[in-house]
Amino acid sequence: KYSQLKVLDSNKGTTQTNQGVLTSKDAFEESFVRHVETTLARNMYNCDNLAAYQATSNTIRDALLIDWANTQQKQTIQDGKRVYYLSLEFLMGRAMDNALINLNSRDNTKSSLTELGFNLEDVLEQEPDAALGNGGLGRLAACFVDSLSSKNYSGWGYGLNYQYGIFKQKIVDGYQIETPDYWLKYSNPWEIMRNEIQIPVDFYGYVYEDHDPNTGKAKKIWAGGERVLAVAADFPIPGFNTDNTNNLRLWNAKPTNEFDFTKFNAGDYQQSVAAQQRAESITSVLYPNDNFESGKELRLKQQYFWVSASLHDIVRRFKKNHKNNWNKFADQIAIQLNDTHPTLAIVELQRIFVDLEGLEWDKAWEIVTKVFAYTNHTVMSEALEKWPVDLLGRLLPRHLEIIYDINFNFLSDVEKKFPGDRDLLGRVSVIEENHPKSVRMASLAIVGSHKVNGVAELHSELIKTTIFKDFVKVFGKDKFTNVTNGITPRRWLRQANPKLAALIAEKLNDPNYEYLTNLGSLKKLEQFVNDDEFLKRWDSIKFDNKVKLANLIKETTNIEVDPTVLFDVQVKRIHEYKRQQLNIFAVIYRYLRIKELLSQGVSVEEIKLKHYISKASIFGGKAAPGYYMAKTIIHLINKVGDVVNNDPEIGNLLKVVFVPDYNVSKAEIITPGSDLSNHISTAGTEASGTSNMKFALNGGLIIGTVDGANVEITREIGEENIFLFGNLAESVEELRHKHIFEGVHISETLAKVFSAIESGIFGNPDEYRALIDGIRYHGDYYLVSDDFDLFLQAHTKLEKVFGHHGGDANDTDHLHKWVKKSVLSVANMGFFSSDRCIDEYAEDIWNIEPLSQ
Amino acid sequence: KYSQLKVLDSNKGTTQTNQGVLTSKDAFEESFVRHVETTLARNMYNCDNLAAYQATSNTIRDALLIDWANTQQKQTIQDGKRVYYLSLEFLMGRAMDNALINLNSRDNTKSSLTELGFNLEDVLEQEPDAALGNGGLGRLAACFVDSLSSKNYSGWGYGLNYQYGIFKQKIVDGYQIETPDYWLKYSNPWEIMRNEIQIPVDFYGYVYEDHDPNTGKAKKIWAGGERVLAVAADFPIPGFNTDNTNNLRLWNAKPTNEFDFTKFNAGDYQQSVAAQQRAESITSVLYPNDNFESGKELRLKQQYFWVSASLHDIVRRFKKNHKNNWNKFADQIAIQLNDTHPTLAIVELQRIFVDLEGLEWDKAWEIVTKVFAYTNHTVMSEALEKWPVDLLGRLLPRHLEIIYDINFNFLSDVEKKFPGDRDLLGRVSVIEENHPKSVRMASLAIVGSHKVNGVAELHSELIKTTIFKDFVKVFGKDKFTNVTNGITPRRWLRQANPKLAALIAEKLNDPNYEYLTNLGSLKKLEQFVNDDEFLKRWDSIKFDNKVKLANLIKETTNIEVDPTVLFDVQVKRIHEYKRQQLNIFAVIYRYLRIKELLSQGVSVEEIKLKHYISKASIFGGKAAPGYYMAKTIIHLINKVGDVVNNDPEIGNLLKVVFVPDYNVSKAEIITPGSDLSNHISTAGTEASGTSNMKFALNGGLIIGTVDGANVEITREIGEENIFLFGNLAESVEELRHKHIFEGVHISETLAKVFSAIESGIFGNPDEYRALIDGIRYHGDYYLVSDDFDLFLQAHTKLEKVFGHHGGDANDTDHLHKWVKKSVLSVANMGFFSSDRCIDEYAEDIWNIEPLSQ
Repeated sequence: KYSQLKVLDSNKGTTQTNQGVLTSKDAFEESFVRHVETTLARNMYNCDNLAAYQATSNTIRDALLIDWANTQQKQTIQDGKRVYYLSLEFLMGRAMDNALINLNSRDNTKSSLTELGFNLEDVLEQEPDAALGNGGLGRLAACFVDSLSSKNYSGWGYGLNYQYGIFKQKIVDGYQIETPDYWLKYSNPWEIMRNEIQIPVDFYGYVYEDHDPNTGKAKKIWAGGERVLAVAADFPIPGFNTDNTNNLRLWNAKPTNEFDFTKFNAGDYQQSVAAQQRAESITSVLYPNDNFESGKELRLKQQYFWVSASLHDIVRRFKKNHKNNWNKFADQIAIQLNDTHPTLAIVELQRIFVDLEGLEWDKAWEIVTKVFAYTNHTVMSEALEKWPVDLLGRLLPRHLEIIYDINFNFLSDVEKKFPGDRDLLGRVSVIEENHPKSVRMASLAIVGSHKVNGVAELHSELIKTTIFKDFVKVFGKDKFTNVTNGITPRRWLRQANPKLAALIAEKLNDPNYEYLTNLGSLKKLEQFVNDDEFLKRWDSIKFDNKVKLANLIKETTNIEVDPTVLFDVQVKRIHEYKRQQLNIFAVIYRYLRIKELLSQGVSVEEIKLKHYISKASIFGGKAAPGYYMAKTIIHLINKVGDVVNNDPEIGNLLKVVFVPDYNVSKAEIITPGSDLSNHISTAGTEASGTSNMKFALNGGLIIGTVDGANVEITREIGEENIFLFGNLAESVEELRHKHIFEGVHISETLAKVFSAIESGIFGNPDEYRALIDGIRYHGDYYLVSDDFDLFLQAHTKLEKVFGHHGGDANDTDHLHKWVKKSVLSVANMGFFSSDRCIDEYAEDIWNIEPLSQ
Repeated sequence: KYSQLKVLDSNKGTTQTNQGVLTSKDAFEESFVRHVETTLARNMYNCDNLAAYQATSNTIRDALLIDWANTQQKQTIQDGKRVYYLSLEFLMGRAMDNALINLNSRDNTKSSLTELGFNLEDVLEQEPDAALGNGGLGRLAACFVDSLSSKNYSGWGYGLNYQYGIFKQKIVDGYQIETPDYWLKYSNPWEIMRNEIQIPVDFYGYVYEDHDPNTGKAKKIWAGGERVLAVAADFPIPGFNTDNTNNLRLWNAKPTNEFDFTKFNAGDYQQSVAAQQRAESITSVLYPNDNFESGKELRLKQQYFWVSASLHDIVRRFKKNHKNNWNKFADQIAIQLNDTHPTLAIVELQRIFVDLEGLEWDKAWEIVTKVFAYTNHTVMSEALEKWPVDLLGRLLPRHLEIIYDINFNFLSDVEKKFPGDRDLLGRVSVIEENHPKSVRMASLAIVGSHKVNGVAELHSELIKTTIFKDFVKVFGKDKFTNVTNGITPRRWLRQANPKLAALIAEKLNDPNYEYLTNLGSLKKLEQFVNDDEFLKRWDSIKFDNKVKLANLIKETTNIEVDPTVLFDVQVKRIHEYKRQQLNIFAVIYRYLRIKELLSQGVSVEEIKLKHYISKASIFGGKAAPGYYMAKTIIHLINKVGDVVNNDPEIGNLLKVVFVPDYNVSKAEIITPGSDLSNHISTAGTEASGTSNMKFALNGGLIIGTVDGANVEITREIGEENIFLFGNLAESVEELRHKHIFEGVHISETLAKVFSAIESGIFGNPDEYRALIDGIRYHGDYYLVSDDFDLFLQAHTKLEKVFGHHGGDANDTDHLHKWVKKSVLSVANMGFFSSDRCIDEYAEDIWNIEPLSQ
């Protein structure tokens, strides 16, 4: 039987189809029981929700594998160009519901589980978040792999399979406490351990020169050192409404059993075991930093481990089909670098070509620069990655040599083009001649790539005029481009907001939800914008989602919020540039003002009508554990909440909530449940933002600065449907200059907030000293003082639009003003599908076509 | 469907039967393909031997789980007394072949695999040894769990699931080099991860006294400290010719996600992740020590982690059926302590009863002492386990208090019985008042158990007259008993020596190999002892096994040995008391003497006829990494081999082989392939030995001292069928005394050996200095000098019996002398089945009955 087949070529798909368990209750249930009894070694009589989750996910996983294997076969046979997306973070969240939706198996699974005595929602809740990312950068990568599959591209992700995800945040006495997220406590059914795919990765050691015995050519040998195995764990990524199922390959570090004389000569068995155990630590921890680098050796080890394993895997796959036909390499392979973290991939590929495959340097470099493209995510120079030459040279001695050679060749070209401009040479050099002497990863990424893109129009313009100005001069402006970020509507609409997705499908007469892969169709919603019945249904879905959010708040904080009030949300990483401090200062001002009015005898009802409508200010997000200022902001938010929420006079007029441990699963509840969301970064600091897109796609309105993707959202949905405020990016430099040389002007309103804080009503004012002093005395780098009153005004304006929604289901004023804007937002958000981004990357940067299905 | 069933009681078996994949090729192949395509996510077209092993083992595992689940059901329903075997080591070796044999599925699997294009033997070779033990103690535990299942007892093993097994031994330039054995590089299909079974285990912290709010009683609270989770991994243990499938539960240490204020108050996220990661290190390394202790804190942590998790698991299971009916506890549960490593279990159970369950101390202690029994494995005082009071008190503060209380009560009883005998009190005290003050684990084990047994008659007598003499005085001699060790004939005859097992089955007219669970039947072989045809078949099977061993030697050492020569084997841990040095000295003497004869012009043929027959001296075994003397012995053996094997004059007359990395799988080849094996420990030092039993059961003859189980083997098989030599145990003390006060007498023969070594022909003599000086100047503790000439004489004698077998298949002299002894050995080895041991333990110590099937 198979003995004959074994001699055939290995590029075959499977012998099975997956239709059974996806569409038949009997097949599902049979598989479910089999997994309970064998895979889990439990029995049906004591099968709890956790076991049900495991049995269900194993059943779905089996089905997914069929598509996955067939996709690999198809990709191999069609042998088109592939793209590899290298990202140090993939913030995937939960996998099961996404798989059920993309495989169109949610209904069969739900009813099968019901027959077996389980509730799908409870079962879904058992899955831990795959929290392998800090924030936007990692979530972007997750949306991109979803779109690559859904749009039928041949595109894989490569990352690391961290044992510990981003820390879990607890709030204790108002402070953020970080606890480790050991998410793999139960085995992960979505991870396919590929123990047969093992790639050795070396560190340390030394370089010597040898001569090729055949050609006599000198060649560099990297020898000695420490060896670790990269073992593949594959995560199948199903596309929506297609069988195309790409692969996300995350590497695990494992000890090698190979015999290392240099290590064992010492004869210390305990030491050698310890060295093996250390190997695994390479993939144990995701660094919990967002937009700043900690410069730890282990981080650099992670980066090299990951890119080395990935590159060798990519080259191996290429050679299987194309042997040593290197001329075809750049026609077959595109590699996208998500931020500078994978920049060593450029060096590693050059090393593979020159040292291992024997190509000439120039030939190799020509291929390398055609293969790579680099996505920049920040203009903040403090967030640009650098590595000390000493550290890099000790860890990767051969790579440092190659970096120097790359830089020498590059600078020679610059010198030819701009003879004698030594300042220019110093500014564009890959090596920063400083203490410590460092390698500038962004410069290396630019030099080694054929395209560099920003992630929103404003951001892409800014990098060309600020941090990368000199490179534009050297390479010309065509090397620099823009691809505005996007989000996957499968997770962020269909999965997070099933009722709204269903209403849209109904109105678009699209029972198969095809609009989810063709998001421009949302435009058709505009025709219903004057249909009151439609607006009411729309509003009532929002209300249901707000109830769900209110329940989450009650569960996690024990605070009760009334779902009829305005839900004013800011959830994202806590960072000074994102300006949660601006938001909480405004909340404090609102509280003080309400108290003042009350003390003047104004009634609560009157306050609601004339001054402030009822609202809940909802915050969420993690601060990097070492980021003192961000942690201070969290503390202040929580302390303000303690005071406001326990003030009996205030009642529903104002609640202040900090939802702990914001993550993807919580975002799936918070996003659809918001009326308004804050995207209020100092202009010019937020590269794009993607949560703004998520909120708008779910019918929430935005209050925001003219920053990042807010600009394009405004263009798409119309200025009248977004609440913009604040100074513009072009004024930032000047304002900062003025702050330093002319002082910071604290408005009367902000001064009231500061003195309230300093009065101690939110606890020991010393704890907030750095926050206030940073604005008052240290130059207010993030322009809080400049934007504060503008922010308050924007709120006054938007509250008028929201109206007095509380309790009145027939508030047509609210419907015609607020809800209409909500519909028009959604109708015009089609542009922000990550499918559109991927198409742009495919066409402008990668030059790849979808697979024929 | 199942929704109705879910309300039923949870003690149900499975919904499936396992007969399909065990007996039908189609069913096997279907399951095989399914596992390849889903579990392994590979396809049939690139399925290699490793994938075939994994698919086969997953298929067999699924079947095994059916029996395993049904056995658990049966055990729960019959609710009889259970035994728990606590052993820090289970040296299981490979699982697949054993499972195939015990499930009677070897033939179906073999032919199914053939159809699929695979060879069963090659597939079996893919499995790594589960080398979770050092030597005899761990292998005994493995044989015992096999017998517990095969004899239908309800008996579980409890141990640790070390990530690193016993180190792999490499020989480099004659030296032992230890390399870590990361045996779980590929996932282990025989391990069923029971992620739902998680038991928290605490360390460190402090104790305070509180009062029960209801009763007002004072109670001790152990608080604070570090928490680690014990997560169960279950290894189903199939019985032979029965569905009874017990469980071997090995614990994995995992970090807890619980929030630990004391740890997080410091606010150092990196530290808290590191602490979590450290948790896993508790079960990472098996300490590679045999018969000596290294006293490391981590070792004590391992012991407590293991016994605490096991005891809580046992108590939980008891409470499920019997609530708080503690009076039944000792009727339901017997716990056997394999050596002193699990002694803290006594303290932990007392703590559970008194601190957690609120029992009175005396009541609790009465139950505890009925539950436990302790197996002693050594009379060597240097191998007796002790823990410093300081260390134990810091790690387990409450346990130290309980130990003091146990000791106080015990000593009070002794004082009553022997008033005023303060020396006696000092000798039997659980606390050794020394520097450092220590807890004597053996004393604690004796005080807390109702029975103490040795593992062979001689050994059980010796402990009563030496190390435990005082306890016999206190407790009376009935507390001390003997259970002579045994081995499982399933692995050590049927699996290791299939041809011999088949011949026996044929002669016993026993096609189902029932003799394997009734090993006394071997006695019937005696009737064929004069049947030449039978003897020839017997001998030719031995020859085939020797060819297999010769192939192993060639593969691992590149030395060619002629399978017709006498294979003289000594494989076991390298230890001075086991006296590999005596053996290699005799080999050196033989070499020198042959060289002398050759130099006198005696021909090789004449040497063979008149002086020495041709032979290969085959050694194997690991030395503890820190045991200098043992490593010196290994070095000497290898260096002697280098000289002898490369001496062209010697040819086949003598070969000296050191097989590296001796383990269970290699033992399965070496044991059946030996003519003669050495069990030559200094009399009174080897507690039992079990490899002597394995060799004898496989038709190899023994050269041995009157020590351990050699004594009973002699009694069973007859003095004429074993080659005994050497001084007896009763002379040892006197000889040692004489060595010190009158000096050591080095015979002429031994002196020649020493001067050859000192001449440098085996390399730098300084490297062997300690070995020779230990004998010549430091009291020759192991009596090498006393036994050396006796050992040579025994060899002369046995060589005459072996005869000049070389090349002559019709050497009836060899048949009638040597082979006959071989048959008579095997025929009388029935007593040494581990089934017999288990029956003795069941009857005399545990008081349990087999389950009705």
